[in-house]
Amino acid sequence: MFDYDLYIPTHVIFGKGRIKDLPAQLSKFGCKVLLTYGGGSIKKIGLYDTVKALLKDFEVFELPGIEPNPKISSVREGVAICKKEHIDVILAVGGGSVIDASKNIACGACFDGDPWDLVLDCSKVEKALPIVSVLTLTATGSEYDGSAVISNPETNEKLPLFGTGILEPKVSFLDPEYTYSVPKSQTIAGAADIISHTLEQYIVKDGNILTDAMCEGVIKTVIKYTKIAIEDPCNYEARAQLMMVSSYGCSGNLATGRTPSPWVCHAIEHEISAYTDITHGYGLAIITPNWMNYSLNEDTVDRFYQFAVNVFDLEKSSDKMKVAKAGIAKLAAFYKEIGLPTTLSELKVCSEHFEDMANHVLTHWQPLDTAIRPVDKQGILEILKASL
Amino acid sequence: MFDYDLYIPTHVIFGKGRIKDLPAQLSKFGCKVLLTYGGGSIKKIGLYDTVKALLKDFEVFELPGIEPNPKISSVREGVAICKKEHIDVILAVGGGSVIDASKNIACGACFDGDPWDLVLDCSKVEKALPIVSVLTLTATGSEYDGSAVISNPETNEKLPLFGTGILEPKVSFLDPEYTYSVPKSQTIAGAADIISHTLEQYIVKDGNILTDAMCEGVIKTVIKYTKIAIEDPCNYEARAQLMMVSSYGCSGNLATGRTPSPWVCHAIEHEISAYTDITHGYGLAIITPNWMNYSLNEDTVDRFYQFAVNVFDLEKSSDKMKVAKAGIAKLAAFYKEIGLPTTLSELKVCSEHFEDMANHVLTHWQPLDTAIRPVDKQGILEILKASL
Repeated sequence: MFDYDLYIPTHVIFGKGRIKDLPAQLSKFGCKVLLTYGGGSIKKIGLYDTVKALLKDFEVFELPGIEPNPKISSVREGVAICKKEHIDVILAVGGGSVIDASKNIACGACFDGDPWDLVLDCSKVEKALPIVSVLTLTATGSEYDGSAVISNPETNEKLPLFGTGILEPKVSFLDPEYTYSVPKSQTIAGAADIISHTLEQYIVKDGNILTDAMCEGVIKTVIKYTKIAIEDPCNYEARAQLMMVSSYGCSGNLATGRTPSPWVCHAIEHEISAYTDITHGYGLAIITPNWMNYSLNEDTVDRFYQFAVNVFDLEKSSDKMKVAKAGIAKLAAFYKEIGLPTTLSELKVCSEHFEDMANHVLTHWQPLDTAIRPVDKQGILEILKASL
Repeated sequence: MFDYDLYIPTHVIFGKGRIKDLPAQLSKFGCKVLLTYGGGSIKKIGLYDTVKALLKDFEVFELPGIEPNPKISSVREGVAICKKEHIDVILAVGGGSVIDASKNIACGACFDGDPWDLVLDCSKVEKALPIVSVLTLTATGSEYDGSAVISNPETNEKLPLFGTGILEPKVSFLDPEYTYSVPKSQTIAGAADIISHTLEQYIVKDGNILTDAMCEGVIKTVIKYTKIAIEDPCNYEARAQLMMVSSYGCSGNLATGRTPSPWVCHAIEHEISAYTDITHGYGLAIITPNWMNYSLNEDTVDRFYQFAVNVFDLEKSSDKMKVAKAGIAKLAAFYKEIGLPTTLSELKVCSEHFEDMANHVLTHWQPLDTAIRPVDKQGILEILKASL
């Protein structure tokens, strides 16, 4: 059993129509609100109007246009508003990108310097404005954790921002109906994101009965309900199940007591989307099975065997390696079945920057030698080339 | 999928020797500390001295002698100290009883009236002193939730106190080594408590893949590691696994999205221990299999069948009822194997107050008609009589 800290001071309010409590929750933190959102989908589904009506007694400033793979430029814009207008609380209405950007804005507003410095050195994250989130996309789990990912196109960098106990939203409203209009392309990207978060923590040397079961439960849920959500986008049960399990992804629950993981797939995918701006979930869907194949060997077979038997119900056998390989193939087949890309080439990503990407992982990410099969520069390149 | 709130603003710090961070954590809340503990076991294991040494720069007041099934008299004593000495933070060092009493003290200190009134009407719990806990007994999960159970011997009442978002410890130190000296009698009572918390939430009409897996994982962990902890009380891994899963018991995680449960076994057991002061876990071990047998019928068989197959690895069969019954028998056999009592008679509890108990459940507990098989007065008496 490994030591752990578990700390998620977010009040999750889950269910249809529960946004009616937004004014009561927001008012705990003040009356000057920065409303952050993305490209306008919240206007299409009427959520923008709902929120504005609920905020009639608040003073509301807006930061629209936060993009996927959120950029430091949006963060800087938000920080400037917070400082100028003395914002009390940030209301993030959107998916992981909007919430992530809001986290960097929240700590940037309390920091005497450029918010990118906080990403480069997270020990500087000491204080942040409170954040309330309204989730509209099921994927990153940012609504229930204290981390974010921010991109800096000027330096081709996409890096994590950590602030446990500081950056978690104070309150997160999770209403599955807000995800009814999420298109198939984003629903499947979200599925790959949730599964990847889980596998990064599941595929480690030592697990335990409880969190093994949790990880397997998350993945089985995603496999079952993504198919239903694609066929029937307004299926409440499917959208609800996906929303519920996605919150667990990065919350720390799935990692309690397990061998700490260096999140190899995320290390590599962040490089790809920093250089090419591809959808994060697509990159993960491509990288993950190749990382699993790279990691599978005689020493690690037991964990992949367990994955195959418990997640895909493959028959137990004395030939564990065969079953383990079949489990990875099943995952890849699921990704293909729901319409995810299976190679980088499909996304027009070529090998041009692979060397730079590998070097950048080694200098800017935590060491990958704690992975179930240690990964060095050669390993990164091997996984990238297998993904082409 | 049912609506849910999930909110556990407790920072869990898990691992051997991590108490060294106690001064840094406590000092966030002030310098005047009320140290609460039980019958002196923390002195025997040296923890009292450790804590006192760590608190050398704090002003410390003490409330020792908090008993199992903690009494309102201890709570009143603690409230008086808090009010008189203007205590900043309560440091609860002990098991569930010490932490539970501390929760009632914490809100009682901020309440202008008798703390028993807060138990009788939890809507009055609006504010509380911060609590930091150091756990020495693995059972109730009080270290990671916002509820407590308080007894009033004058009125033969044992009632829950709820204060989600207010009564959770701010920080809980979980060091498995502090449970090495817990005797077998309490280790097995803790096992029954954890399993009961889980089954109260698992045996409901509608579950879901994730939390079904979590519940099954908790129970499997308890079954495996309780046996090891009994044989080898200083086995770190066993004590650690039990400590980790016990925190999940009442945290809300196991209930997310499921049919809300009225906690039938707890309703009945609280009556028994209010009248007789028997060990809570013993009462639960006796009641639980009888409640399960009461609840098993053609309409509910699927859930008990799943329990039997997933927790006890019983072979799948078309005769679900037979497998379901065997699963319940397996649980009862496990309780017996580890030395738990299986009948109330063994604890010298007779049927004298059964009528009063049943009446009190119906007037003071939430309605039991939402249970997987609704329970009326006749049902309570049936379960009690089967437990004799």
